[in-house]
Amino acid sequence: MTDFSERYGPWALVAGASMGIGRAFSHDAARRGVNVVMLARGEELLRQIADEVRDEHGVETRPVVADLTDPEIGSVVAAATDDLDIGLFVYNATIAMHGRFLDVALDDQLASVAVNCATPITLLNMLGRPMVERSRGGIVLVSSNGGTAGAINFGTYNAGKAFQWILGETLWTELRDQGVDVTTIMVGPTSSPNFNAFQATLDRDLCDRRDSDVPLDRARARLLYPSTPEEVAAAAYDALGSDSPVCFSHPDDDWIFRASLALPRDEAVATWRGLQETATRTPDRIAR
Amino acid sequence: MTDFSERYGPWALVAGASMGIGRAFSHDAARRGVNVVMLARGEELLRQIADEVRDEHGVETRPVVADLTDPEIGSVVAAATDDLDIGLFVYNATIAMHGRFLDVALDDQLASVAVNCATPITLLNMLGRPMVERSRGGIVLVSSNGGTAGAINFGTYNAGKAFQWILGETLWTELRDQGVDVTTIMVGPTSSPNFNAFQATLDRDLCDRRDSDVPLDRARARLLYPSTPEEVAAAAYDALGSDSPVCFSHPDDDWIFRASLALPRDEAVATWRGLQETATRTPDRIAR
Repeated sequence: MTDFSERYGPWALVAGASMGIGRAFSHDAARRGVNVVMLARGEELLRQIADEVRDEHGVETRPVVADLTDPEIGSVVAAATDDLDIGLFVYNATIAMHGRFLDVALDDQLASVAVNCATPITLLNMLGRPMVERSRGGIVLVSSNGGTAGAINFGTYNAGKAFQWILGETLWTELRDQGVDVTTIMVGPTSSPNFNAFQATLDRDLCDRRDSDVPLDRARARLLYPSTPEEVAAAAYDALGSDSPVCFSHPDDDWIFRASLALPRDEAVATWRGLQETATRTPDRIAR
Repeated sequence: MTDFSERYGPWALVAGASMGIGRAFSHDAARRGVNVVMLARGEELLRQIADEVRDEHGVETRPVVADLTDPEIGSVVAAATDDLDIGLFVYNATIAMHGRFLDVALDDQLASVAVNCATPITLLNMLGRPMVERSRGGIVLVSSNGGTAGAINFGTYNAGKAFQWILGETLWTELRDQGVDVTTIMVGPTSSPNFNAFQATLDRDLCDRRDSDVPLDRARARLLYPSTPEEVAAAAYDALGSDSPVCFSHPDDDWIFRASLALPRDEAVATWRGLQETATRTPDRIAR
């Protein structure tokens, strides 16, 4: 993994680092020989995972307790990392509220806008400039196939994922001729405690048409074989420097992405709404 | 226009009301018999346009001077309108910065996130709930075909327009069975002082293939026959209640939208980047 660490080291910064996909991004960067600054809110878990990554891969880790809704996040991160050369930036933090738009508390929705839109803008500005000055670096944005269409129950979240998708595409084309590789991973179903609770509520009779040419059928079937967080992280790192601005952890996510974008918009929305309605009940939750 | 005013009256609120498309939205709501609350930053122009709308159409207008980057915008608007039944909400305000992502001042980019993402969330929450309680109302979001792909020079702006596009689609499907009509207009080239200055810099030899099947050629040709602001406003109002979540002011914008979304993403980005590069020079500007 020397090439990876020479191109994207010596330090990575992973925002939203202690659980699920973020934990996997931290581990995989370390496995590829890069030290890791790890940002998350909950101090105890963060320190535990930072120790785990350090001990397992023999790199340095630096846990930074930070609230990614904080408008002062730029100063917080700068103060905690100004002695480091950060060659890899992974923005994985998110807030997803479940519920109809008008039923979700406004404060939670604004926190989602802060984490999904404002904070990545701040950190990308701060961390991207030194990469361009060194003519090397890597940036990974973690978006979602849910950002490609309206649906129900995830209005502000899906809009934030659309923001990251299109922002990531601009950064991919603006920065690639300056030596900085950008990819945006359009995450599909991924195993996590939240996802596994959701999966348990599925109407499985709706999920048996994995080879269908109908996007909704394919998307429903995909719920039964989610990617692991490790697969998501590896797919994104492997896509750095590729000729596509977006990447996927499974070919079926790529197929669903393209097929859904080719639909008339009422049908695209019906597809993603139908996917939500595959669950017979959905637990109310705020996942951060 | 009785049907329109009965369904979407007695008051409209237009955010970003005094120039270009917003001025046209104010006029057209008034022409259809709806009184108009008009929000904008610059007091003098706002009062002038509010008087113009009132005098021309014989409705009431209420200018409200407001900074749409203000985190307290909800309180400001509530205090100014709590005696009114607002049946129509048009979110047209925007901030577009021109320049490579790393060359644009962070404060301007965060102001763009506030205006394009946070403030619509706040106002939609506030104004949408009473519409659902009355089982009638209309919501218009003003997005852009630029929100459908990354490009160059408009990174944070295009991401914000993607946010509005996907948010509008969710609201369209969530609220339509509750009596509230939502549409998102994917704006294409529209005549305005800024656009006209841009148009003057075009390499016109690149813009002569209006009937091409190549999205970039069609999009370049479209620059030579922009819609008027009045056409944009009328198209959006006429689309309220339609079976598509998005609408367009010209059939070619619809064609370009669909053709671009059907492309592999590297080609979609090349299309929208190429469109930017049709100009031989582009004035640096911040349009609010």
